[in-house]
Amino acid sequence: MTQQDSLARHAAELAQDHVNSGRLQAAIAALAAFGGRDDGGVSRETLTDIDLAARRYLIEQARALGCEVSTDDCANLFFRRAGKADLPPVLTGSHADTQPVGGKLDGAYGVLAGLEVIAALNEAGIETLRPIEVVAWTNEEGSRFGPGAMGSSAFVDPACLPAYRASVDGANIRFGDALDAALAATDDVPRRPMQRPMSACVELHIEQGPVLERAAVPLGVVTGIQSVRWYRVECTGVMAHAGTTPMDERSDAMATAVGIAHQLYAYAAAEAASQLRLTLGRWQVGPNSVNTIPGKVEFTIDVRCVDEAVLARFEATLDAMMAQARPRQGGVTYQCFFRRPPTHFPAAMLSLIERACARASEQASQGKPLHLTSGAFHDAMYLAEHCPTAMIFVPSKGGISHNAAEETAPHELFLGAQALAYTVAALANQ
Amino acid sequence: MTQQDSLARHAAELAQDHVNSGRLQAAIAALAAFGGRDDGGVSRETLTDIDLAARRYLIEQARALGCEVSTDDCANLFFRRAGKADLPPVLTGSHADTQPVGGKLDGAYGVLAGLEVIAALNEAGIETLRPIEVVAWTNEEGSRFGPGAMGSSAFVDPACLPAYRASVDGANIRFGDALDAALAATDDVPRRPMQRPMSACVELHIEQGPVLERAAVPLGVVTGIQSVRWYRVECTGVMAHAGTTPMDERSDAMATAVGIAHQLYAYAAAEAASQLRLTLGRWQVGPNSVNTIPGKVEFTIDVRCVDEAVLARFEATLDAMMAQARPRQGGVTYQCFFRRPPTHFPAAMLSLIERACARASEQASQGKPLHLTSGAFHDAMYLAEHCPTAMIFVPSKGGISHNAAEETAPHELFLGAQALAYTVAALANQ
Repeated sequence: MTQQDSLARHAAELAQDHVNSGRLQAAIAALAAFGGRDDGGVSRETLTDIDLAARRYLIEQARALGCEVSTDDCANLFFRRAGKADLPPVLTGSHADTQPVGGKLDGAYGVLAGLEVIAALNEAGIETLRPIEVVAWTNEEGSRFGPGAMGSSAFVDPACLPAYRASVDGANIRFGDALDAALAATDDVPRRPMQRPMSACVELHIEQGPVLERAAVPLGVVTGIQSVRWYRVECTGVMAHAGTTPMDERSDAMATAVGIAHQLYAYAAAEAASQLRLTLGRWQVGPNSVNTIPGKVEFTIDVRCVDEAVLARFEATLDAMMAQARPRQGGVTYQCFFRRPPTHFPAAMLSLIERACARASEQASQGKPLHLTSGAFHDAMYLAEHCPTAMIFVPSKGGISHNAAEETAPHELFLGAQALAYTVAALANQ
Repeated sequence: MTQQDSLARHAAELAQDHVNSGRLQAAIAALAAFGGRDDGGVSRETLTDIDLAARRYLIEQARALGCEVSTDDCANLFFRRAGKADLPPVLTGSHADTQPVGGKLDGAYGVLAGLEVIAALNEAGIETLRPIEVVAWTNEEGSRFGPGAMGSSAFVDPACLPAYRASVDGANIRFGDALDAALAATDDVPRRPMQRPMSACVELHIEQGPVLERAAVPLGVVTGIQSVRWYRVECTGVMAHAGTTPMDERSDAMATAVGIAHQLYAYAAAEAASQLRLTLGRWQVGPNSVNTIPGKVEFTIDVRCVDEAVLARFEATLDAMMAQARPRQGGVTYQCFFRRPPTHFPAAMLSLIERACARASEQASQGKPLHLTSGAFHDAMYLAEHCPTAMIFVPSKGGISHNAAEETAPHELFLGAQALAYTVAALANQ
């Protein structure tokens, strides 16, 4: 180990050991008050008045920690702790917006743990070589304006922004107009270019799944993000009266759809070993009336796996199923309307995070960190195209997320912030 | 055959032979202008301004034929041709309201063929023993205000009316208020009591199914109306993220629902010989999002058969399926929310209609009338509780109904009106 390595490790350990659980819990509670609900959930959709108030609050908190605040054309907020050299910074953070009814941790935890890392570095009197920036990305959730992860994806590829600006919400408000209003509300914050160099990025997030909880392990090293494909299956038949049409005269689009769906579930069960995940989540039935034979049924397939070959095999099977399904007087078609290859985080980042998580877990007499893949998308998925990136997961109680009941034990949130502090401090001295 | 029988038969044949196809076609076209659409369909939902204008037109047409017009508390319209004696009248007719987008025949045909029978009797100079009344029932369709067949069911059981009056449409208008406005618009029409005695009732209607067309037969003797049961099946699971939740951790309400639906379709296929009709027509999925595992799926079962025992067996099987379906962390329940036993029309009515249809078919060198059951409900279903009742069907091209494309060949409509004229004239001399 070189002397520089040794100093970097010492700074990382020091930063980790200065993370304060009480301060972190207080920060989580304070941010959750913006859009807080009686049921313990949070309603803070992107760029609403409540979100703008929360952003203003985060700016004040960051400035109180001595950070320099900047924004960009997508209203992403960056809180910068200066380094000894003006090198590309280490980036951490997540998003502060929520689903229409979300919890207090999804996104917010990553932003607040980033600020906690800065507080810990301040308290420990550590100077890092590189600057550290905590980011709050705009519109990760995608519930008010689609698609999700607008802020991080536009940062990495600003050419996306014009199309995003045209996206409208349920009240017909353009994302572009909401964005301009948000930027006008923070006109005291300088704007910096998108796509500027970052030396590395680490995102800390709740798992939103049951794997860590089931393994009784507080920290997860996220090795990558699953590949996903979305399909729309459309079954057409002939709408007719449920009472007057004999069974052998029917072209029932629902009977066709149920036949295909049944085969798909059977296929997924047979592919259990390959960890294929299959969801038939959105259904539209026409005319959707008790006593009319459905003339049209459309349903979506969400299929995921970290192994791209498994999805290719799935698509070939789907093809074969469609070719076989020849309903009387009807038809079946499908189309892929979204696909994203898997993200594999770089090995060097994984070994650093493994070390950070192992130390935090060991000190707390907890089980060794588990390696797992993320089934959900995260801002880190886009940043991985821009700089070496990785993620740390903490458990979600019952695997529940996008729900007021979202919960993680305080000691797990604490260990996650510790692992983040170690990782960020180590990266900032590289 | 008594002399009276012989005279009655002679009058019936004379009435049948005076039915005029051109006059009937002109009447159908004239009524279809009220709410007529560019696509050939008709939009004339109950008690709309268009429906009120159509009612006013029918009143004028009936008065021009010498009829006395009356109404009742449910705004049903009765057009009465006097008899030699003031006996309970023979009733025929149907309804003049349509689905939001309907055709020109469903309902309208029965009313207009009734008026054509009166025109034929007038032209032939036939006096009948009993009065004949043509009725246009209010709100058979049930699309604007639920349930359907309000007019006929309230006539038979006036105790239904107060609940009907409270029914509201999509614009929050009460049926009771719409009814009062309709009655005010016809304040020149005397009101007569509901539930008054009728000697018999015959309803002529399009089949709305493909059976007569398939058999290439123009007239159908309707032996009864199928029994129907409606169930709501509710599958509950745990809403969770499609990406983060491993397959063996899921409680997927859609997987449960598809499993049950698949079994139901298989059961219906195995019961083909019993003529069971099964429709899973209305589906509600929560939250109905591409990337969320459904936490709740509700679907309806519409099951029909003229044999009540077949439906009882179906229900027992459904019970057993529900008991077997024990989804992980989820549940399945069902409830019956509507049931109606079969209607069997009396044998004496059927043999009279058989005779009427056979004579009309034979004169036109057409195939013998087919006996079939109705899978749809009709006003006649309620009248069957009040007096001897029966129905005559003519073919629906392609079995299509509740659709602008609803169609029946003019010569088939003519033969239907001929059969009705024979039946009504015979009944009016009994």
